[in-house]
Amino acid sequence: MDIHQLTRTLHIKNDSKIVMLVGDGLGGLPLEPGGLTELETAKTPHLDALAERGVQGGSIPVLPGISPGSGPGHLGLFGYDPLQYVIGRGALEATGIGFELQHGDVAIRCNFCTLDAAGDISDRRAGRIPSEESAPLVEKLRAVSIPNIEIFVEPVKEHRFVVVLRGEGLDGNVADTDPQTTGAPPLTPEARDAGSEKTAEVAAEFFKQAIKILAGQPQANGLTMRGFSARPHLPSFEEVYGLRAAAIAVYPMYKGLARLVGMDIVGAATTLSQQMDVLAEKWADYDFFFIHYKYTDSTGEDGNFAAKVARTEDLDAIVPQITALDPTVLIVTGDHSTPAHLKNHSWHPVPTLLVSDHCRTDQCRQFSERESVHGGLGQFEAKHLMTLALANAGRLGKYGA
Amino acid sequence: MDIHQLTRTLHIKNDSKIVMLVGDGLGGLPLEPGGLTELETAKTPHLDALAERGVQGGSIPVLPGISPGSGPGHLGLFGYDPLQYVIGRGALEATGIGFELQHGDVAIRCNFCTLDAAGDISDRRAGRIPSEESAPLVEKLRAVSIPNIEIFVEPVKEHRFVVVLRGEGLDGNVADTDPQTTGAPPLTPEARDAGSEKTAEVAAEFFKQAIKILAGQPQANGLTMRGFSARPHLPSFEEVYGLRAAAIAVYPMYKGLARLVGMDIVGAATTLSQQMDVLAEKWADYDFFFIHYKYTDSTGEDGNFAAKVARTEDLDAIVPQITALDPTVLIVTGDHSTPAHLKNHSWHPVPTLLVSDHCRTDQCRQFSERESVHGGLGQFEAKHLMTLALANAGRLGKYGA
Repeated sequence: MDIHQLTRTLHIKNDSKIVMLVGDGLGGLPLEPGGLTELETAKTPHLDALAERGVQGGSIPVLPGISPGSGPGHLGLFGYDPLQYVIGRGALEATGIGFELQHGDVAIRCNFCTLDAAGDISDRRAGRIPSEESAPLVEKLRAVSIPNIEIFVEPVKEHRFVVVLRGEGLDGNVADTDPQTTGAPPLTPEARDAGSEKTAEVAAEFFKQAIKILAGQPQANGLTMRGFSARPHLPSFEEVYGLRAAAIAVYPMYKGLARLVGMDIVGAATTLSQQMDVLAEKWADYDFFFIHYKYTDSTGEDGNFAAKVARTEDLDAIVPQITALDPTVLIVTGDHSTPAHLKNHSWHPVPTLLVSDHCRTDQCRQFSERESVHGGLGQFEAKHLMTLALANAGRLGKYGA
Repeated sequence: MDIHQLTRTLHIKNDSKIVMLVGDGLGGLPLEPGGLTELETAKTPHLDALAERGVQGGSIPVLPGISPGSGPGHLGLFGYDPLQYVIGRGALEATGIGFELQHGDVAIRCNFCTLDAAGDISDRRAGRIPSEESAPLVEKLRAVSIPNIEIFVEPVKEHRFVVVLRGEGLDGNVADTDPQTTGAPPLTPEARDAGSEKTAEVAAEFFKQAIKILAGQPQANGLTMRGFSARPHLPSFEEVYGLRAAAIAVYPMYKGLARLVGMDIVGAATTLSQQMDVLAEKWADYDFFFIHYKYTDSTGEDGNFAAKVARTEDLDAIVPQITALDPTVLIVTGDHSTPAHLKNHSWHPVPTLLVSDHCRTDQCRQFSERESVHGGLGQFEAKHLMTLALANAGRLGKYGA
C-alpha cells in the first residue's frame, strides 16, 4: 500500500501551518565510544525546550543499515518511499546545479575525457581539467544542433557537465557510454527499451558533433555520457497532501529536490538568518515550509566535530524565530546522519522532534540521539513523518468508518 | 523491495570480520509476572560489559506475535525474509539430519504406519516403533530401485524417516499421502503442478515397492509421505553480501541451514569450547562467522529454568575468547525466544546486542530482555540485522546520490 493512496483520500484543508526544519546530516556519533555526539555536545537550549513540549523519535532514512544519499534522504522526509521512487543519476545531477527539469526531459551526466589518435580513451577524466578551462568548452558545446530537440549543456565542476535533451518521444533508459577503462573508445549510446531509442540516436548525434567541436583540444577532446534519466514522476505535495508547500533553501540540490515534489522555491536567502526572513514574509501564503540547513552535513563530511557542534548551535539559535510564528506543527529532523567520526552519510537513526498541541509529549528533556531512540515516536521509517505531520495539523480524516 | 536487491549493489569488500553468536531460543520469560527472565537471572558479566560498549534492540523473528521454527528463525537472522523464503518440511527434515540436499532434489518426510488386511491405516505412527526397530527397516527400503532416479532413505527417529529423490525433472509440489485419519488407505501421491508430475509417479512407485518390502512386519507394514519439497533457492551470502561465511555449529540442523545460504561448515566441534578453537583457527579465512549454541533452546523446551540460566552463563563465559580476536562487529542474538515457562518457541522480541566502533552506544548497561526493548536499535524485524552488521563493518556503500 502506497502511503499516498491513503493521504490522497484522507487529507483535509484547514488553516494550520507545518514547518519542517531539516538539519542536513543532523545525526552524529561520539568520537569515542560512550562519549557525546555533536548534537549532544552542542548547547541547544531552544531545541531542548521544544523537546520538553514535543515528542521525539529516531527516523530511519531508508531501512536499517542503509546510508542514503541526499536524494533518497529527502524523498523519505517528504513521504515518498525512497525504494519506490528513484531519481536517476543524471536527473539528480541536473537538479543539483539548479536546472529545472521538465517532464519529458532526459538528463545525462557527462565527463570530458582524452582520446588518443585512434579514438581510444587515454584519460577518463581529461586530467581533471579545472573548471575555468572546462566552462568555456561547455559553452562551445551549446553549438550542437539537432532538429526538433532543444539541448542544454551546463557546467558542473572540473571535467563534469550535464546535458539535458528536451523534445517529443524521449526516455531515459539508455546505457552509459563510458567503457569504464582506458584503451577503448566511448561506447555508442544504446537504448535498453523501445521508448528510449530516439534518445540513443540523439545522444549519438550529440557525441558526433561534440567530437568535432572539441577536436584539437589537448586534454578534453572527447566525452562520455552516463546516468541517462528522465525527470522522475513524483506526485506533488498539493495532490497527495493538499498542501501549498514552499521550500526555503540555499543550495541548488535541495531547491531542486523540493521542486520535484511540487514545492515553490521562495526567496533568495543565502544565510539561515535570511531564510528566517523569507519564512516570516511568506507565512501567509503557504501551508507547509521546508527549511533546509546544509552546514550540519558539510562539517560532518569534513570530519570537523567542533565545527558541526558550532553549526548545530547556529541552527538552535534561530528556533525562536520559527516558534514566534506559532506553527501548528514544527518538525526538526535530518535527512540522514553525517557523523564527523565517519566523514560520511551514515545509516544511524536521525533524532527527530515533532511539536504540536496534540503530539502526546514523551519524557525526553533534551533533543539528542540517545533520548530520541526511546522517545514517543519510537524508531520509524522517515517516509511516515509526513503523515504524522498532517495528523498533528488536523489535516487527515479518519480511515474507514 | 527485496533487501538483497539493495545489498547486491551496495556491498563493499574490506578486511572487517563479523561474528554472529546465536544462542538458540535465547529470549525468555519470568516464571512469575514481574520476575526476572532466564537471561536476567544469569550472571553474565561479559555480555553486560559488551552491553556497555554496544547497542541493543529487540529482534522480532518474523512479525509481532509470530513464533518461528528453527528454519524461519535462522533465515531472518541471515537476512532472508522468512515470509518470502520458505523451506519445505521435507527439505528441513533432510537438512536437520545433515543430508546435503542438491538443487533439483526432492525431500519427503515419511512415517511408518500400520495397515490392516484391507490396506487401511490402523495406526498412523506404527505404534511409535522405537528407533532400534525402525532403523533396520529404513535400511531394507534402500533396496527400492527406480530407473534414472537416485534414492536416499535415511532414518530420523522412531517411526519417522526421510526419502530424497534425485534425478532430472523432479519438483516438490506433491500433496501429502497421509489421509490424517485411520480406517482409510494412504492416498496416491498427486502432483499439484505439471512440473511435479514425475515426482508423484516416482513416489507412487516407491510406495508400491516399499509395501512389498515391508509386507509381514507386525507394525511398520506401511508408510505415508508428507512435506514433499525441493531444495529452496536461497541466494548465497557471497552473492548477496560479498561475504565469505563460515558456520561453526554442533547440530546437523544448523549446519544444514547455514549450508543452504552458502556458508562453509567448518570444524567438527562438539562443545562450545571446541567451537571457539575452530573460530580462532579459521579466523583468517572468512569474513563472517555464524556460531550456533543449542542449549539455551533445549533447556527452555524442557521447561528447566535453572538449567537455561546455567547454560546462558556457559555462553557468557566464552565471550572473551571471541573478543580476544577483536571482531569488527560482534552480534549476540537468538533465532527466537524459548521461555522455560512456555516449554516452547515464542514470539517475544529476542534481546540482541551489536558491538562495533560505529554502533552509537545506547544507555543499556545489562544484556537483557527489559533493557533491549528500549535500546538504540529499537525493535526491528530480524531480517534487518545483516544490513546493520554490514553497515557497522563498513561493508555497505551509499544508496543513491
